[in-house]
Amino acid sequence: MTLHSEIHEQPTRLANLFSTQRKKIETIAQAIRTSDPQFVFLAARGTSDNAGRYANYLWGAKNSLPIALATPSLFTYYQQPPKIQNALVVGISQSGQSPDIVSVLENGKKQGNLTLAITNEPNSPLAKNADFILDIQAGDEKAVAATKTYTSQLMTIAMLSAALSGEKARWDELAQIAEWADTALEQDQKIAQVAQRYRYMQQCVVLGRGYNYATAFEWALKLKELTYVAAEPYSSADFKHGPVAIVESGFPVFAISPKGKVFDSMQDTLKHLKNDLRAELVVISNSLAALELAEISIPIPENVPEWLTPLISIIPAQLFAYHLTLAKGYNSEEPRTIQKVTETR
Amino acid sequence: MTLHSEIHEQPTRLANLFSTQRKKIETIAQAIRTSDPQFVFLAARGTSDNAGRYANYLWGAKNSLPIALATPSLFTYYQQPPKIQNALVVGISQSGQSPDIVSVLENGKKQGNLTLAITNEPNSPLAKNADFILDIQAGDEKAVAATKTYTSQLMTIAMLSAALSGEKARWDELAQIAEWADTALEQDQKIAQVAQRYRYMQQCVVLGRGYNYATAFEWALKLKELTYVAAEPYSSADFKHGPVAIVESGFPVFAISPKGKVFDSMQDTLKHLKNDLRAELVVISNSLAALELAEISIPIPENVPEWLTPLISIIPAQLFAYHLTLAKGYNSEEPRTIQKVTETR
Repeated sequence: MTLHSEIHEQPTRLANLFSTQRKKIETIAQAIRTSDPQFVFLAARGTSDNAGRYANYLWGAKNSLPIALATPSLFTYYQQPPKIQNALVVGISQSGQSPDIVSVLENGKKQGNLTLAITNEPNSPLAKNADFILDIQAGDEKAVAATKTYTSQLMTIAMLSAALSGEKARWDELAQIAEWADTALEQDQKIAQVAQRYRYMQQCVVLGRGYNYATAFEWALKLKELTYVAAEPYSSADFKHGPVAIVESGFPVFAISPKGKVFDSMQDTLKHLKNDLRAELVVISNSLAALELAEISIPIPENVPEWLTPLISIIPAQLFAYHLTLAKGYNSEEPRTIQKVTETR
Repeated sequence: MTLHSEIHEQPTRLANLFSTQRKKIETIAQAIRTSDPQFVFLAARGTSDNAGRYANYLWGAKNSLPIALATPSLFTYYQQPPKIQNALVVGISQSGQSPDIVSVLENGKKQGNLTLAITNEPNSPLAKNADFILDIQAGDEKAVAATKTYTSQLMTIAMLSAALSGEKARWDELAQIAEWADTALEQDQKIAQVAQRYRYMQQCVVLGRGYNYATAFEWALKLKELTYVAAEPYSSADFKHGPVAIVESGFPVFAISPKGKVFDSMQDTLKHLKNDLRAELVVISNSLAALELAEISIPIPENVPEWLTPLISIIPAQLFAYHLTLAKGYNSEEPRTIQKVTETR
């Protein structure tokens, strides 16, 4: 299956990206530092929007950049774009085609801001409106559900963050990504088995916080696109402000909770869900304490630093969505209703 | 029932807010204009976050302000807040208690930005960290599910937008809010009847775009908090980028689609959902063309200008959630699991 082979292609793609793009990304980082933007204005949809969520946390925490997520309809239907000054305007799109995302870059450039496109199509309309193009070099992605383009987007976002901060230790960590991704893929057969249990699941919640807020959204999106499960993503904090009410005994809660700064907060939430509300937990983590709470535990490599966990933790999540698709008897290559390139205005 | 009476209190609360707070809001607007912020940095959770979504579109379209939604965990667990300069830092919270939201204001102030609290508790920790306090004056809200504090938050956001733009015509429109809200409440009995049809609904999608992106999120939140339905909100554009795959024949799609700039886009989506995917539509609108597509149509007053529709369209949505709660045999006053004040870090 194409989807399955594209999931397995990821270590190679990430290794190539690391070895071929570092210099170019360092040049772009230098230009960004020179222009000294006060904030980032970012436009994206779907899977690319989830990559944007990673940038929101990573560039915020490691590069001190506040991020405004664009409201593209203000640029298209309303024709009332906000006044954007001293910003870095970023568009993320696999195809670089969606007119609303292109509009944001076009307008951002017209207002005098530095513009950056993160795309798999360096000749796309999005790229043509950008001062700088980060070509994610994921190769042709044939499956409708995006997998390798997502991790390649995360990789470029992470490399740009390392380049902006200039910390050598972070490049050393990035150099290990392909190896960790390989290890994560070793769970393939185990995940094929455990996914069977969810053959008749119709809805679930997916929780992540901090850097893995993005992973929660992307896992939920894969489940919706491929398995048609109503999977709703939340930060564990937002979840407590109301939505937790939907959880009753046996309700499936999926969680991404690697070791790191938000681990204790996630752990409190997971304990409450398991012990007080009797939820059923599926947990991706590199902490034994988190995995022990789960009905289904999916380990990731021990040593991945927190800031890079989103690149690794999404891999078993992709495999889970793929195998659940087969278990439910659906077509993993061509999900109903949706197409590879979605154009919205 | 307290929840029901708080929903019905809204016209009076909105009228009072309009008549008593205009001067104060104009003073605050003057201070904001003087400080000339380049962007807004906004922190909120739950219902207040949905009010923030309204501000995102309204202040963007009418006041040219880009909005960055805060990632509070960067201020708390990560202790790596972004560098915020020349911004207006806004916290929205009914109780003004949640430590993560307070942290964002505190840090924003420390970094030298103008800070604004929008709260029902002018003596709360949030208010104490603000240069300016917008007291939403909703009165004590006893039901766990927020209703009147939400519309009061929207009203202060709308009044501040009018004050910042200085357009008299917008104040004249604001003056009619209470009357429109009264008209919206007249649907109470009809909604009590039509909600019966959804007694056994377990999941649905809620769509809105532009200004009513906020309404989609708030309607979905009320459904989750009160009826435990897995209701997932989307902009109609984001929905097309993947999640639409979950829709099969008979799948319930709720939509808020009043006349305005994004109406044609919403209408295309609703037609596709009804005619091609055979979804079941529940539509809140003041357009006959939209209402005619619906299995259950819920009209709102004809003349509400688009920018104010979120204040009116949420009212029948609140009533719908309330009546569905009773139809399902749940407690509308004390939903399981959640409390009135949620404190997250």
